[in-house]
Amino acid sequence: MLTFEVISQSSTTSARAGTFNTAHGRVETPIFMPVGTLATVKALPPEVLTAAGAQIILGNTYHLYLRPGCAVIDKFNGLHRFMHWEGSILTDSGGFQVFSLAQLSTIDEAGYAFQSHLDGSRHLLTPERAIDVQICLNSDIHMCLDQCIPYPADRQLTADALGLTTRWAKRCKTHWEAHTDRQNHLFGIVQGGMYADLRSRSAQELAELALPGYAIGGLSVGEPKALMLEMAAHTLPLLPPDKPKYIMGVGTPEDLVELVALGADMFDCVMPTRNARNGQLFTRRGRLNISNARFRDDTRPLDEKCDCYTCRHFSRAYLRHLYTAREIMAYYLNTLHNVYYYLSLAREMRTAICDDRFEAFRRQFYLDREAGAHQ
Amino acid sequence: MLTFEVISQSSTTSARAGTFNTAHGRVETPIFMPVGTLATVKALPPEVLTAAGAQIILGNTYHLYLRPGCAVIDKFNGLHRFMHWEGSILTDSGGFQVFSLAQLSTIDEAGYAFQSHLDGSRHLLTPERAIDVQICLNSDIHMCLDQCIPYPADRQLTADALGLTTRWAKRCKTHWEAHTDRQNHLFGIVQGGMYADLRSRSAQELAELALPGYAIGGLSVGEPKALMLEMAAHTLPLLPPDKPKYIMGVGTPEDLVELVALGADMFDCVMPTRNARNGQLFTRRGRLNISNARFRDDTRPLDEKCDCYTCRHFSRAYLRHLYTAREIMAYYLNTLHNVYYYLSLAREMRTAICDDRFEAFRRQFYLDREAGAHQ
Repeated sequence: MLTFEVISQSSTTSARAGTFNTAHGRVETPIFMPVGTLATVKALPPEVLTAAGAQIILGNTYHLYLRPGCAVIDKFNGLHRFMHWEGSILTDSGGFQVFSLAQLSTIDEAGYAFQSHLDGSRHLLTPERAIDVQICLNSDIHMCLDQCIPYPADRQLTADALGLTTRWAKRCKTHWEAHTDRQNHLFGIVQGGMYADLRSRSAQELAELALPGYAIGGLSVGEPKALMLEMAAHTLPLLPPDKPKYIMGVGTPEDLVELVALGADMFDCVMPTRNARNGQLFTRRGRLNISNARFRDDTRPLDEKCDCYTCRHFSRAYLRHLYTAREIMAYYLNTLHNVYYYLSLAREMRTAICDDRFEAFRRQFYLDREAGAHQ
Repeated sequence: MLTFEVISQSSTTSARAGTFNTAHGRVETPIFMPVGTLATVKALPPEVLTAAGAQIILGNTYHLYLRPGCAVIDKFNGLHRFMHWEGSILTDSGGFQVFSLAQLSTIDEAGYAFQSHLDGSRHLLTPERAIDVQICLNSDIHMCLDQCIPYPADRQLTADALGLTTRWAKRCKTHWEAHTDRQNHLFGIVQGGMYADLRSRSAQELAELALPGYAIGGLSVGEPKALMLEMAAHTLPLLPPDKPKYIMGVGTPEDLVELVALGADMFDCVMPTRNARNGQLFTRRGRLNISNARFRDDTRPLDEKCDCYTCRHFSRAYLRHLYTAREIMAYYLNTLHNVYYYLSLAREMRTAICDDRFEAFRRQFYLDREAGAHQ
């Protein structure tokens, strides 16, 4: 049973600090989960992730199911030993990738039928199968299979998807209860698109299942930022307060700060890792494109206040050189910095909440960015 | 002044163990120098190189001169701080890359005129300029500019190139003596192609310059293996015994063992790093192609006797998965293993020489490989 303890609550916002334990350790919220799609957080060795403060990472069920597949991972009793990661792992259900990556996918009450984006092979992803794969991956947190929808989506499609998502969540729970010792934890996913009343309905239906945790899915799918925050602000208070609240696939540093203010506890996003590989680096003064010619002989670190390995030992000039030469070390150093930035941001928010100065933290966060235009 | 001390000499072969110091530490020979072409040993952070036992790495003057260029590296007082490498650095002269990479290069008494392979810009590389660039890079060992020739090459071309190489070595020495405090060291390069008498002449002419160390260039350029070893066997005894003897750009693990037996002290080669990126991994039982389907669910490490980070924590199945998925971590883990393999091989040879059991070591080295066919 997952026990989520709220250890501190901001007095002026909905921000909160909490902790929960998995079989692989303690997770301190608010937390950012680096994305490890294919059994590796791209470019970073596990010990480097741990040193950067990562407590929990995300694995993508769809990707791992196709490659290397359960037969291989089963030989290692799951992802942890396969990839040499000793912290916690959350796996998604595969639904979002089937929706966004697979070819010729169709959906009905049974589940998703799809063809692999790699080789065109045919597969069926049912709620039960999604759980079975996650059991094989032996992740600490499993996600229920949900139906993802495009943005914009009309009300009927949204309502239908929400209904199916609830029915699938029930099937996931039944299967999970029957086939695991529940040392791992099952989270439900609230859908409902950009319709507040449908979000309410989804949150209520899922809350009735009394799952160990809850996520909000279907945000950051192309809608305006204000609408994303509006939907989160509407939905977060409807989720059980004694369970972790996870916003899936979001977002920028600013998004994290705003969503924590609204009561969110957990995040994942490819942004720090993917942007690192594209040369975009996060600092407290904003983002840098390291390929910019003005960094050509800049002997300063990326961020003078950052104490990550990259900033302690390397200059902007060196990082620009590596990046423009497409050296592998560019991906390592850039990713390390960006992941450290996200993890530090979550950690600093947690500390600010515990000291009940979250609003002051948020103000300074934006002031640092405004000051950064001339960096 | 470089002081090379032979601390042990094999009683049955010409193998020897030695040490010398640079401003950046002690170098224990026989030694392998990982290649760090563009101010990074591809895929490996400096601390990982150090932990793997690297004492000295190689930088490519031609590449660094073009990118990022001396103006940038000068801001860091040289390569060491630019790339955060605290060990020793040897830089080549740029001649070989002009010969093999540059466009429209022409050579005369003055030096090489060439166009950059990156942007077609025009440059002149004289012996003096080669030293100036290496002074800017602030490497611990500079190499004299030499004229490289193709294989096969006729006797006249080879003799002419050898003559020019000697004249250039004199100019390099004069310039180096005039423009440095000689805390770093200048090595000459013996040429002479596949003509034993020309190798003799080159070795003698260079020995007269009393340089701090000597290299044999122009080997492993396409000639049969037996001819390479024949030329090395002929030339190595002609070099001053109290100076380090460096075989440039060689080679396989077997080459290293044979050349150490003939009296060579230093090696560099892209093979461990480049092959790693192509999925070819060195073990004491021979080479593995990690993409091979038979490793799909192989839970064993690459080499059960290897105690590198990769072998201590990861399986062949995981390495195959990363490699087939083209994950950046594949390049990191593969490169780390291969570099560790080469560095360990050099270290084990040194120990065997000090214990005067080099021939037994060499026998076991080949026995392990023969046993490896069924690995």
